[in-house]
Amino acid sequence: MSETIPHWLTKQADINPNQTAIELENGETYTFKQLKEASQCFARKLAALNVHEGTHVGILSGNSIEMIVAIHALSYLGAVGVLLNVRLSRPELEFQLKDANVSIVLTSDKYKMSASQIQVSMVKSFSEINVLQEKYNIPLKTELNLEDVFTVIYTSGTTGFPKGVLHTYGNHWWSAIGSALNLGLNKDDKWLIPLPIFHVSGLSTSIKSLIYGMPIYVLEKFDVKKVHDAIMSKGITIVSVVTVMVQKLLNELGNNRYPNTLRCMLLGGGPAPKPLLEKAKEKGIPVFQSYGMTETSSQIVTLSPQDALKKLGSAGKALFPAQLRIDGGNEDSIGEIIVKGPMVTKGYYRNEEANKKSFHNGWLRTGDMGYLDDDGFLYVVDRRKDLIISGGENIYPSEIESVLSGMEQIKEVGVTGLADETWGQVPIAFVVKIKDVTASEVFSFLRQRLAKYKIPKEIHFVEELPRNASNKLVRSKLLELRR
Amino acid sequence: MSETIPHWLTKQADINPNQTAIELENGETYTFKQLKEASQCFARKLAALNVHEGTHVGILSGNSIEMIVAIHALSYLGAVGVLLNVRLSRPELEFQLKDANVSIVLTSDKYKMSASQIQVSMVKSFSEINVLQEKYNIPLKTELNLEDVFTVIYTSGTTGFPKGVLHTYGNHWWSAIGSALNLGLNKDDKWLIPLPIFHVSGLSTSIKSLIYGMPIYVLEKFDVKKVHDAIMSKGITIVSVVTVMVQKLLNELGNNRYPNTLRCMLLGGGPAPKPLLEKAKEKGIPVFQSYGMTETSSQIVTLSPQDALKKLGSAGKALFPAQLRIDGGNEDSIGEIIVKGPMVTKGYYRNEEANKKSFHNGWLRTGDMGYLDDDGFLYVVDRRKDLIISGGENIYPSEIESVLSGMEQIKEVGVTGLADETWGQVPIAFVVKIKDVTASEVFSFLRQRLAKYKIPKEIHFVEELPRNASNKLVRSKLLELRR
Repeated sequence: MSETIPHWLTKQADINPNQTAIELENGETYTFKQLKEASQCFARKLAALNVHEGTHVGILSGNSIEMIVAIHALSYLGAVGVLLNVRLSRPELEFQLKDANVSIVLTSDKYKMSASQIQVSMVKSFSEINVLQEKYNIPLKTELNLEDVFTVIYTSGTTGFPKGVLHTYGNHWWSAIGSALNLGLNKDDKWLIPLPIFHVSGLSTSIKSLIYGMPIYVLEKFDVKKVHDAIMSKGITIVSVVTVMVQKLLNELGNNRYPNTLRCMLLGGGPAPKPLLEKAKEKGIPVFQSYGMTETSSQIVTLSPQDALKKLGSAGKALFPAQLRIDGGNEDSIGEIIVKGPMVTKGYYRNEEANKKSFHNGWLRTGDMGYLDDDGFLYVVDRRKDLIISGGENIYPSEIESVLSGMEQIKEVGVTGLADETWGQVPIAFVVKIKDVTASEVFSFLRQRLAKYKIPKEIHFVEELPRNASNKLVRSKLLELRR
Repeated sequence: MSETIPHWLTKQADINPNQTAIELENGETYTFKQLKEASQCFARKLAALNVHEGTHVGILSGNSIEMIVAIHALSYLGAVGVLLNVRLSRPELEFQLKDANVSIVLTSDKYKMSASQIQVSMVKSFSEINVLQEKYNIPLKTELNLEDVFTVIYTSGTTGFPKGVLHTYGNHWWSAIGSALNLGLNKDDKWLIPLPIFHVSGLSTSIKSLIYGMPIYVLEKFDVKKVHDAIMSKGITIVSVVTVMVQKLLNELGNNRYPNTLRCMLLGGGPAPKPLLEKAKEKGIPVFQSYGMTETSSQIVTLSPQDALKKLGSAGKALFPAQLRIDGGNEDSIGEIIVKGPMVTKGYYRNEEANKKSFHNGWLRTGDMGYLDDDGFLYVVDRRKDLIISGGENIYPSEIESVLSGMEQIKEVGVTGLADETWGQVPIAFVVKIKDVTASEVFSFLRQRLAKYKIPKEIHFVEELPRNASNKLVRSKLLELRR
C-alpha cells in the first residue's frame, strides 16, 4: 500500500510557521508560513490557466524565490514540474518539452524572451502569472501520495537523446530521510544552495528544507565570492558543491579558515582529485564525498561524518535505506555499480527501452564502474562509459556527435573528454570532412543547437577515425589524433 | 508499491560496526556488530526449533539484552513477536497467546517457572535456546518489506477483551522517522529506556536505536534511583517516562539540576497535571508532553522543543508524517481525537469488529477526547470511557485530578463517577496523602477552584491507587477502594 503524508509545506508551516524557510542573497527571508501562502496563491493563479492534476509544466529559471514558489505551487495542484536547464539551446529545450508532453512553460523575466521562441503552447513569466486572478473554487492538495510523480529532470543518455527521469514525492522524501540519517538533523542547520535547482542537487535541498523545517540560503547561481562570504558570515552549516567549486573556494579561502559551524561540504557531481581532498582536509574543511545521479534523486552513497577523514577518495556507503552492489567485478574487483532503494526513480518517462536496459528486479544499473574496499567503502573508478563531466554537468559524446553528423559538410565525427584544470574535463571533437568547412563554421553551427557547456573546446580535422574490427568508433584512441 | 529497505540491524552494523548499540546497567555494552551477530546466531538457533517466516512467537521478559536479541532474531526469520506483559495473570496470558496464535513462548529464567504453567505448545528460556545448535542452512533476511508485520502488542484496555495491535516494519520505521524530524538527530544522542520493552514505548526506542545508529541505555525496569543516576552521569540525552516517574524524579532531584546534555524528557502514557509540569519547568527539565498509544506505534503527537515551554499542558502537534483532527466537537470544541499516518497500525489481529469500529478511511478513532487551541495545539481532555455525566453536565475526571494534584499535601489522586439517583453520576475522589490533611480542607481547596457540580461528593483517603502494568491509573477499579 502506498503511503500518504500531509502536504509537506502545509505541515511545516503548521509546525513552524515563523521559522525561516528561505534566505536570499539580497537579504530577503521567507518563513514557512509565507512560503506556503505564496505557493498556494500561485497555485490558484496557475489554476486560472487550467493547470491541474497531471498537467506537465516546464520550469525555465535560475534559482529564485519565484522559481521555488512555482515548484511548490505545482504540488498543491498535483501537477508535474519538468525542470529545464537554462543553458540548453532552443532545439534541446524543444526536444525535452515535446518528449515530456509539456503544454505550458513558466519562466523568469530573464529567460522570457528566449523562451518565447520555443515551440510550445504557452510561455508565461512568473510576473505575468502573479498579476492573474486566483481561482478560488479549486481544491488544493492537503496530502501527498508518495507514489505520485512530482518532478521530471532530463539526463543525457548514451544514445544521444536525453531521458526524462521521474521523481515521485516518495523519491524526494526518502532521499531527504536517507541524508538526515547520515548527516543528522541539528536545530541550527542552514543549507546553502549554490547549485541550480533545475538539477536534482539543488531541487532535493529545497525539498529537504520543507521536511526538516530547515532554512536554505539560495544563490541565483554559483559565485565563489558569494559562497565564500555566506559560509563565513551567514551561519551556513551544510553546503552542496561540485569539484570545481571546491577548488575555487580553496583559492578564495587562502590562509583563512571556515567557521566551525560549517559541518559538511557535500561534494557530488563527479570524481574529485585526491590532492584537492587532501588540501581541503589540511584546511579543516569537512568535505564529504558522495555519489549519486538524477536517477537516485541526488546522493545515494555518501561518506559519513565519522569516516570522512579516514576514507579520503571514497564516496562512502549506501545511505541507510539504500543498497549498493558491484556487478561482474574483474580481477581488480572493479565492476558496474548497481543500486537499489526507495529514492531510486521508478523509471524514465515513456521510454520502455531505456527502462528495460536500466532496471532489473528493483536494481538500477548505473553504468558507472567502481569497487568496494575491505571495509565496504565505494570507490568510483570511472563514470558511465564515455561520459564527460565538465564543471558538474554531464555530457555524452554521442549527443555532440549526433548534432555534428547533421552538418552536411561532415562525414563522421568522434567526441571525447580532455582533462582540464578548471572544469575537470572538456569535450573535444575529431571531424572527418566530406566538403570544405572551417572550424569557425562548425562552432557557429553548434552554438545554435547545443548548450554552451557542451560545445567542444577544440575541433580537430582528421583523415579518419580510429575504429575497431567491427568498425565501431574507439573513443579512447581519439586523443592520440590530437596534434 | 510497498517499499523495501536493507535489514536495519545488518545495515547499521555495516555503517557503524563499532558504535555502541546497547548499554546495560551492569556496565556491559554491545556494538551494532555484536548485536547483529548475536541476533543472527539466535535466529539460527530458533530455526532449529522450526521458527520460520510467519511463526508467531511470544516473548515474556523484563528488559534485558537477551530479550532485545530475541526480538531482532525474529526479524531475521520473518517471524512475528507477540510481546507479553510480565504482570499479566495466567488467564490473561493464555487469552493473548490463544488469540494471537502463538505456538512458542520465549522467556527469561526469571519467568520460566510461571511461564511453564501456561497452556501453550512450547516454552523455552533464552538460556535453553542459547545452548542449541545453530541451523546454518536457512537464509536470514537481508531486506525488510515495510508492509510485513513484525510485532503484536495487546492493548491495555480496561474494559472488554484486549486487542492485538499489529505493527509492521513500516509502522516502526515511520514512528522513528517522525520522532527524529521532531527531536532532531544529534550525534551524541543516548536514549534511556526505563519503560518496558513489552510495551510500545520501550520497543519503539529499541528500534530507533537501529535506525538512528544511536546507543540506548536499558534498565530492567523503572527504578527512580537508577534513572536519576543514569541521567546524572551516563550522558543520557533523551529519556522516555510516564507521569508518575516525573514526580518521583523531581523528588529525587531535590535542589539539584540535571546536566544540560539531557535535552528531552519525553512524557507519555496519559495526562500530566499542570502543577507537575510547572515544577519541572522551574527545575529546567525539558519535559515534552506527548500523546500516543499502542495503535500509533508510540507517540504520534508531541510538543516540539521550541514549543515545550510555551504550551505547557499541551501534547503538541501531530508528528510530521501524521495528521490529527477533532471529530464532533461540542460547544467547548472538545471532541474525539482521530489520527492518521504511516505509523498507525493497519489493524487489530483477527478482530474485524474492532477494526470496523476504529478505522474509517485511513483514520483511527482513538476514543480519547481533546481539543485544539487557536494555534492548533492538542490538549487531551480525557479518555472517553471515563467521562462522568452529572445532571447533563460533562465532567472530566482529569480536570479534578489536576486541581487536586496542586494541593501540596496530596501525592496522587484518582477520580471516577459514582452512580447517583438524582444526578445520574457524581464524581468521587481517591486521594493518597503525602502530608496530613482533612477532607474538609480538601473540599475547601476545591470550592475555591472548581464549579460546584465538579466537586467530588466523597473524598476517600487510600494507601495507593490502582495502576496497570504501564503505570497508568485504572479508574474503573477506584470504586473497589470505596469503604
